[in-house]
This record gives sequence, structure tokens and C-alpha cells, in this order.
Amino acid sequence: MQQGKLFVISGPSGAGKGTICRELIETGDFALSVSMTTRAPRSGETEGVSYFFVTEDEFVRCIEEGGFLEHAQIYGNRYGTPKAPVLRELEAGRDVILEIEMDGASQVKKNWPQAVLIFILPPSLKVLKERLRGRGTETEEQIELRSSRCLKEIRLISGYDYYVINDELDAAVSDVLSIVRSEHLRTEGCEELIRKYEEE
Amino acid sequence: MQQGKLFVISGPSGAGKGTICRELIETGDFALSVSMTTRAPRSGETEGVSYFFVTEDEFVRCIEEGGFLEHAQIYGNRYGTPKAPVLRELEAGRDVILEIEMDGASQVKKNWPQAVLIFILPPSLKVLKERLRGRGTETEEQIELRSSRCLKEIRLISGYDYYVINDELDAAVSDVLSIVRSEHLRTEGCEELIRKYEEE
Repeated sequence: MQQGKLFVISGPSGAGKGTICRELIETGDFALSVSMTTRAPRSGETEGVSYFFVTEDEFVRCIEEGGFLEHAQIYGNRYGTPKAPVLRELEAGRDVILEIEMDGASQVKKNWPQAVLIFILPPSLKVLKERLRGRGTETEEQIELRSSRCLKEIRLISGYDYYVINDELDAAVSDVLSIVRSEHLRTEGCEELIRKYEEE
Repeated sequence: MQQGKLFVISGPSGAGKGTICRELIETGDFALSVSMTTRAPRSGETEGVSYFFVTEDEFVRCIEEGGFLEHAQIYGNRYGTPKAPVLRELEAGRDVILEIEMDGASQVKKNWPQAVLIFILPPSLKVLKERLRGRGTETEEQIELRSSRCLKEIRLISGYDYYVINDELDAAVSDVLSIVRSEHLRTEGCEELIRKYEEE
């Protein structure tokens, strides 16, 4: 059986990586990773489904043991992607999708170089700004700031393996699925395949 | 405009690379390369369409000038893939498909390292032998020889970028098209893409 692969979906905020990931997960072909956090559970959140809820000490111990693919601190709370459950899925032959911020994506690549990094791009900065205005949650000044940060982030694209321009959602999802399919057709590590023919 | 890519379809004979290539060419998305040969034209063959027909001297001069992506001698006649027309297509943004024997494929990789090499496999040696028997053109001994040569060739798979198992033709063609699509989404050489966003 072929090992699963870890696909990291990242890119500037506002490019639509969340929407793409939801569509990918709906195909039923991917395992989801559950994050670990030190923040308190909110009502309706379930341990091991929404998050693994841990104490600050437990989180720090996990860092020290090299137990994270990536982790970060946001508004005083810690969040991280534990390595073990992801590796278990990969060994069981399931592909895993991780949707994370760009800083997390580069941490994953360091800790798991086999990860396939996909950069989701807006079709243009103009469209990005229109989308952010559509959300109605940010001021014009914040939108301009986001747009110039997006441009800076696009310059980091060479740290990624692939890019997908999210113009039409269906086409973007289908681009990602092509990447997933072709990554399983790479000849690296196909010693097992050769053995199959030898043993006939 | 994005440059085209050169896709080399190769693998053991009997795996069905010819059939796959015909299907790929029917999509209309690929340019064909025309081979150069020293053999005499047969009736119905057109210069520049079937082949570029040249003299021995012209062929040798082309070798000396580094003008081939690959070339070989078969039954006293020479055959080769001239570089210039392929590069013209790539520069015009068209993908090129080359169906060649394995020796030619490794020559192409040496002369044009950007080429994407795809190895077409039969689903099993048993199926390979059945297919060869179905053709009815070879003795049982020749079929056994082909099968053991096929196994030796499969061991060379790591010199290729991707492999595709030709079990169901439609699925195999669709695998190749996924590879083509995802190769165009690789971040290597996307400086032009970055510039597009910068110039907005």
C-alpha cells in the first residue's frame, strides 16, 4: 500500500484557502488534522474533534519533544499541529490536508520535508481588495495594508512546491486535485512498485 | 505567457505508450514533434509532416551541431528528434509530447533537463504477455524475452519523474493530463507571475 501524503494549503489571507480546503475535505479523500491548543474550550467544542485541549505545561513539553509539525502563539494562546496523528494517517495510506498560515507552512516543511506545499493566490490584488470589502469586516486602511502584505507574501512563493490561482473555485479545487494525483505518480520511493513486478 | 513544457512518454514496449499518446494528441493541447531520418520516403509520406528526410551527411552535421534532443540508428537508418522545432513550440507556449524508446528518453533528459519524463507501465507482466499474444506477431519465446526485458526496464524507473500504470486507457490518459496540469502549477520559474502582481 502506498503511503499517504501531507498537503499544506497556505498563502495570503483573503485568497480563499479556507473555502478550497472545505471543498477538498468534502471529497472524502483526505484526513483532517486536529490542532492542539492551550485556549479554553468554547461551548459546543469537543475534545479531540475541534481541538486537543491541553495546559500550557503539556503544550511546552510537546514542543520540547519535537511533537509539533508547526506551532504558534496568537493573542496569548498557543496553537499547534501535533505530528503523531498526522503520521499515523499517512502510514495508513491516507492523504492529509493542513490549512495553515504561511509561517506555519514553512515550519512544516522544515519538520516534514516530504510535505507538499501549495500556495493559494488571489487572481489579482484588485480582486483581493474587492473580496475583503465584500466581507465588510475591515476598514479601507486595513484592506490596503492587507493588499500590500499579500504582495510581500507572494514574493515568498518559491518556498512552495505549487501555486494555484483561486479565480473560479471549481477550477482551483480541481487544480489542487491534479497536484494530489500527480504527486502520487512520482517515481520517488517506488521500490515497492518494482518489487510487485519482480514477485509476479 | 507561460512557456510550454516537453513531456516524454516512454517505457517498456507493449505497455501501450503509443495508444496513450494518440489520445493525448487528440485533445488538441499538444504539439507534435516531427522526426528526422536518413531512410527513403515511402509512398504517401510527406516531407516535414511524416519526417524530415535528410542525407547521411546532413544527419551527421546535425549531430555535430548538437541539434538533436535524441537520435538512434535502427537497421542502418538514422532517426532523431531535432531540437529547434521543439524549442520553437515551447517558446510559443505550446506543450510538446514525445513518444520515444527508453534510450532516447534518457538522451532527452541529458540534452533538455527541464523535460518531464513519464514512464508507462503495464498493470502486470502477465497482462503484458497477454497483450503481446493478442497481437499475434511474436512467438512464445519472443514474448518471454520481452517480459524479462520489461522487468529490467522497470528497474530503471527512478530515472523518470512520473509513472503511469496503463490498466484502463481512460484512467491512464487522465493520469498523464493531471501530471501535465500540475507541472504547469510548479513554482519554479514563476518570477513572471510575481511581476504580474507587482505591476498591478
